[in-house]
Amino acid sequence: MSKPKITDHSKSPYAELDSIPMNRVEIRDSLLRRKMEVNHSNSIPDQLSKCKDTGRIANFKIARGLEEEEISNHLAADSDIYKLLEAISYDLSTFDEGKLRDKMDEVIDLIEKAQEEDGYLNTSYTVGGGYLHQPYVSANDEYDKWKDLSFGHELYCGGHLIQSAIAHHRRTGEEKFLKIAKKWADHVSKTFGPNQKNGTGGHPEVEMSLVELYRETSEKKYLDLAEYLVNVRGTEKSGLNSGIQSSEYFQDHKPIYDQKELKGHAVRQLYLLSGLTDIYSETGDEDLWETLLSQWKDLKSRKMAVTGGCGSRYNGEAFGEPHELTNRTGYYETCAAIASFMWNWRMLQVTGEAKYADLMERTLYNGLLSGVSQDGRKYFYTNPLEHDGGRDLASQYRGSNRRTTKHFDGTACCPPNVARLLASIPGYIYGVSDNSLYVHHYVASSVDYKVGEKRVKVTQESRYPWEGKVKLKVDPETKSEFRLMVRIPSWAEDPKVKVNGENAEIEPTPNEYSEIRRKWSFGDEVDLEFPMRIKKIVANPRVSDNTGCIALMRGPVVYCIEGADYPKIDLYTVTLPKDADLKAEFDQNLLRGVVVIKGEGMSVPYRKNLYNDLRDSSPSKPERVDFTAIPYFAWANRDPGAMRVWIPLAEIMLNKIGGSEEMNKKKT
Amino acid sequence: MSKPKITDHSKSPYAELDSIPMNRVEIRDSLLRRKMEVNHSNSIPDQLSKCKDTGRIANFKIARGLEEEEISNHLAADSDIYKLLEAISYDLSTFDEGKLRDKMDEVIDLIEKAQEEDGYLNTSYTVGGGYLHQPYVSANDEYDKWKDLSFGHELYCGGHLIQSAIAHHRRTGEEKFLKIAKKWADHVSKTFGPNQKNGTGGHPEVEMSLVELYRETSEKKYLDLAEYLVNVRGTEKSGLNSGIQSSEYFQDHKPIYDQKELKGHAVRQLYLLSGLTDIYSETGDEDLWETLLSQWKDLKSRKMAVTGGCGSRYNGEAFGEPHELTNRTGYYETCAAIASFMWNWRMLQVTGEAKYADLMERTLYNGLLSGVSQDGRKYFYTNPLEHDGGRDLASQYRGSNRRTTKHFDGTACCPPNVARLLASIPGYIYGVSDNSLYVHHYVASSVDYKVGEKRVKVTQESRYPWEGKVKLKVDPETKSEFRLMVRIPSWAEDPKVKVNGENAEIEPTPNEYSEIRRKWSFGDEVDLEFPMRIKKIVANPRVSDNTGCIALMRGPVVYCIEGADYPKIDLYTVTLPKDADLKAEFDQNLLRGVVVIKGEGMSVPYRKNLYNDLRDSSPSKPERVDFTAIPYFAWANRDPGAMRVWIPLAEIMLNKIGGSEEMNKKKT
Repeated sequence: MSKPKITDHSKSPYAELDSIPMNRVEIRDSLLRRKMEVNHSNSIPDQLSKCKDTGRIANFKIARGLEEEEISNHLAADSDIYKLLEAISYDLSTFDEGKLRDKMDEVIDLIEKAQEEDGYLNTSYTVGGGYLHQPYVSANDEYDKWKDLSFGHELYCGGHLIQSAIAHHRRTGEEKFLKIAKKWADHVSKTFGPNQKNGTGGHPEVEMSLVELYRETSEKKYLDLAEYLVNVRGTEKSGLNSGIQSSEYFQDHKPIYDQKELKGHAVRQLYLLSGLTDIYSETGDEDLWETLLSQWKDLKSRKMAVTGGCGSRYNGEAFGEPHELTNRTGYYETCAAIASFMWNWRMLQVTGEAKYADLMERTLYNGLLSGVSQDGRKYFYTNPLEHDGGRDLASQYRGSNRRTTKHFDGTACCPPNVARLLASIPGYIYGVSDNSLYVHHYVASSVDYKVGEKRVKVTQESRYPWEGKVKLKVDPETKSEFRLMVRIPSWAEDPKVKVNGENAEIEPTPNEYSEIRRKWSFGDEVDLEFPMRIKKIVANPRVSDNTGCIALMRGPVVYCIEGADYPKIDLYTVTLPKDADLKAEFDQNLLRGVVVIKGEGMSVPYRKNLYNDLRDSSPSKPERVDFTAIPYFAWANRDPGAMRVWIPLAEIMLNKIGGSEEMNKKKT
Repeated sequence: MSKPKITDHSKSPYAELDSIPMNRVEIRDSLLRRKMEVNHSNSIPDQLSKCKDTGRIANFKIARGLEEEEISNHLAADSDIYKLLEAISYDLSTFDEGKLRDKMDEVIDLIEKAQEEDGYLNTSYTVGGGYLHQPYVSANDEYDKWKDLSFGHELYCGGHLIQSAIAHHRRTGEEKFLKIAKKWADHVSKTFGPNQKNGTGGHPEVEMSLVELYRETSEKKYLDLAEYLVNVRGTEKSGLNSGIQSSEYFQDHKPIYDQKELKGHAVRQLYLLSGLTDIYSETGDEDLWETLLSQWKDLKSRKMAVTGGCGSRYNGEAFGEPHELTNRTGYYETCAAIASFMWNWRMLQVTGEAKYADLMERTLYNGLLSGVSQDGRKYFYTNPLEHDGGRDLASQYRGSNRRTTKHFDGTACCPPNVARLLASIPGYIYGVSDNSLYVHHYVASSVDYKVGEKRVKVTQESRYPWEGKVKLKVDPETKSEFRLMVRIPSWAEDPKVKVNGENAEIEPTPNEYSEIRRKWSFGDEVDLEFPMRIKKIVANPRVSDNTGCIALMRGPVVYCIEGADYPKIDLYTVTLPKDADLKAEFDQNLLRGVVVIKGEGMSVPYRKNLYNDLRDSSPSKPERVDFTAIPYFAWANRDPGAMRVWIPLAEIMLNKIGGSEEMNKKKT
């Protein structure tokens, strides 16, 4: 049996790093641990029953003629099941629970039965129903297998089948599920390719799964198929074509080597980039790498919300133009944040560069965790940066301030995606390379793995992300020399690294790994300190929606103000003086324990007119107000109200530019 | 023959005012006159040939089996022809040109032939083709007449047929075209209504045309039909239903009496409100009036761009939520500005209240005129308030900074709508009521009409909108007493009204009509002065996109900054100090003669990072820059570049809140 790897990435010839199996890492009491617990106890069981209630499981029975009352007629329903099973395989490495394992096996039995003789597997087609319910099905569409590559989602679902099966195989060592996936992949590789049917999938996903299947089985045909599927994009062979979406929507507007900017549907784009990064890590194609670097630069410098959210645009759930980063009407799908996290994980594996881990961290603690409620029972697709507190679901084109589960009545991509991501957290914390152990992320945890020839246990003590102090206890089985690579977060000012109480002879540089090379002995301790100053963040002026506003960050956490903390006033009167003195306080009883930012703000009343002459716009009586900001990811867990990430500067709204006498007056 | 009325509104029992036929008003040398000339000499002829080239005229030939090579397969193609003919009828009252008249008659002959025996007329259905090309046609749709009321546009096209025919009748006195329209309307009134087919149109338009037909013919059945068509909205009888749009999109979410807020597709909403206002003016239905007042308040206080633009949202070309007034991604369709102008004209007729004329003025000089290029040959559908100057047509969901004519390849609603609006300008300047003459709008012009029993000629001398001085020469045929009602613009500060050089004994109040009642004799003069201070406008804080920014207005004109005036610098570095001293200059050679705003601005360089710590974000070397702003309506007539209506305050971008030393330093 192949060596167990429970992350979805493995050491590859062109990758600097190797991952560490999830079951060799334990996440201890921490914010992330609690998210994992809620995911285990609430999200996964809830989602299993939702899938049952909505006929997603029934589909597999009916697909093989087993009787069942109600089916799901959603096109990509199968993928929700696969993602959920993948989540369970990961979850079992932290919470080993027989009941859950049995449930998983039951479903896998159904999947096995539902697979057709030739390996084809997609209940939307074998059961039928689903496709007709898609609004974009137009008069000319056909419903046969492999006919509508643009929206058919067959390759997409198959990709999730493979990822799920690999996770199951790595967790359990059993071959059954993996065999199903291989049988499907073999069918596809006999169907698509040079001298066979031309085409690729309208929603990337299968590419990364095929590379992983190649890693798992060492069968090169899977890598070849992945390369074929990406290389036909942007050519007449792609088979993608749609009346209602642009070719950019599918990343089909140019050959992939010429795609230098993020375009179109954000999840599609970022899944494709994840697959391309996987391919690079196996092939070392330099031109491909140039493309990946260019795309990443576009993300980091022009197309990412301060929360790490991706895809600002409702239309096509897409990346906007450069600096088109809207707040109130921002889309920022939870799946897109997950996709960005996945892509940055792969870029980190290839390069060993801290900036990718840094973006993973920003995305995880903000635009990603915001997708699920604190009780793990409700979900956002859309993660806007502002809400006016008005009626819920005011329209299909504005984010809600209430999470729901109604997604399961249609596309339910985000909930199981969050579930598998949270369950797989242990896989992303540490990494290895030759004679080095990498600490990518900070969270109370421990890892027990081989570094070089020796086995090493590292225990991490930390209250991250709430405090910047981290203690690493390094316990090699016997004295041994290796490099401990500790990531210095980009936001850390004056970071400190001590070894056994002494300053290490290194210059810790933000957004790089610091190398500590020594002969380690049992009981060695490394102390890290990353001061968490509360930062007032301003956006590039081209992000015109944020003019005159600041966002608050402390460590990796982005904050917001929410109506629930201002019961007596209109949130749109709340402003922050530029020089406001802010402090951070951990509140055990708020939102299951978060650090809140407090200080003195100004409530600036305003005239109700839509437009005013600047002369007349000075407010009547600005008032000091107790300012409270909460972590963005925790918003919308109390009474629904208004919310803002970007907070106006008091001086602007006071119209006192050139002097803030009013405020000084107030203070004396 | 009925008394000639060339505006699309007439004195009605519940209307305070009556309109004045266009041919009794002459627009003299002025910005509007030049727009009318360009409309006459370029836009109308261009559009006629475009309609020919794209098969829109051929459709009418083929509809009756006359041979023709190419047809237009656009669904609402007929309406473009009707709007253009309407434009020509209006245009002829200013520029009487035989060639144009002949062209019009030719097309009317074709229309007559294309009409079916029973009165039905819509070439998209009789020719076929068109409908299939609509992306929203789904598997279940049918293409028969009156089957798809939601998107079929049959009633919509018919409404334009009626408006066009009435304009023709009023201009020429000929019955031919009007007969065609009546035959169509008779067919519809035999088809739809109580105890007949239930339903209404997915795109309002026919309602206002039916009321006008009732006014023109005094046949009440047309008014009844209009009432029926609005009263079934929001009930199960509406026959509207769509897979891809919400019921709000069609204003079908509630019975009209319960529709208190602007919703859905902006043009549909505003055309419906225009029709409802027409119905009110004939029926005096008080509940309907309550609805209209509530909707107008929503427009004025929450849903209107500073340019008067309506419908901020690309999705569904729709009104957004309250205060959702985006700049860069704003839609603000030219047709929606025209629709708002039309609705406010009707509200003015009903009430005689200046605030409606004021909104007409704001919309006309900004969000409406921006829809057509200065040479009258190119058009915007989308009128965003910001453009970053990046690649054109970056996506289907961002406004362009280049006007085009490509609309004629598909939906070409805006170009002929602008053409008919500009051609009908003479109809909106003056009005009468009993013994009163109203001056609604200021423009060099003259009117010759009956006030009470006496005929009066008024000559208006003005350089409006560039100067606020207006001279009215009042020449009654013989001495007569009547009220001259002069509108005081909302923006006018310390307005003055003089009669024969003496201050009139009235208190001119902004946004009201001032009444001058006297016995007028030939040669009397009224001098009006509306000082045009350059105003720095700030938006309500709920319009969060405009935080920290100001817009410039002078008189009714909204300004913008455009890249072409800043060839050496990034427009996103251009800011304006709060206390900037600005002056207005008329530049004869710029953009065919406009008043530009000049002063001293600051160019504030910025770090390229997407997000910065406020501490690090102070720019290196801010520089004084010659500030120039041009009228918004005139943007995108030079080399394509960036444009902004909302201009950041220098103090914000300098991050010098609490003091602007840097700027002072620069000055000394």
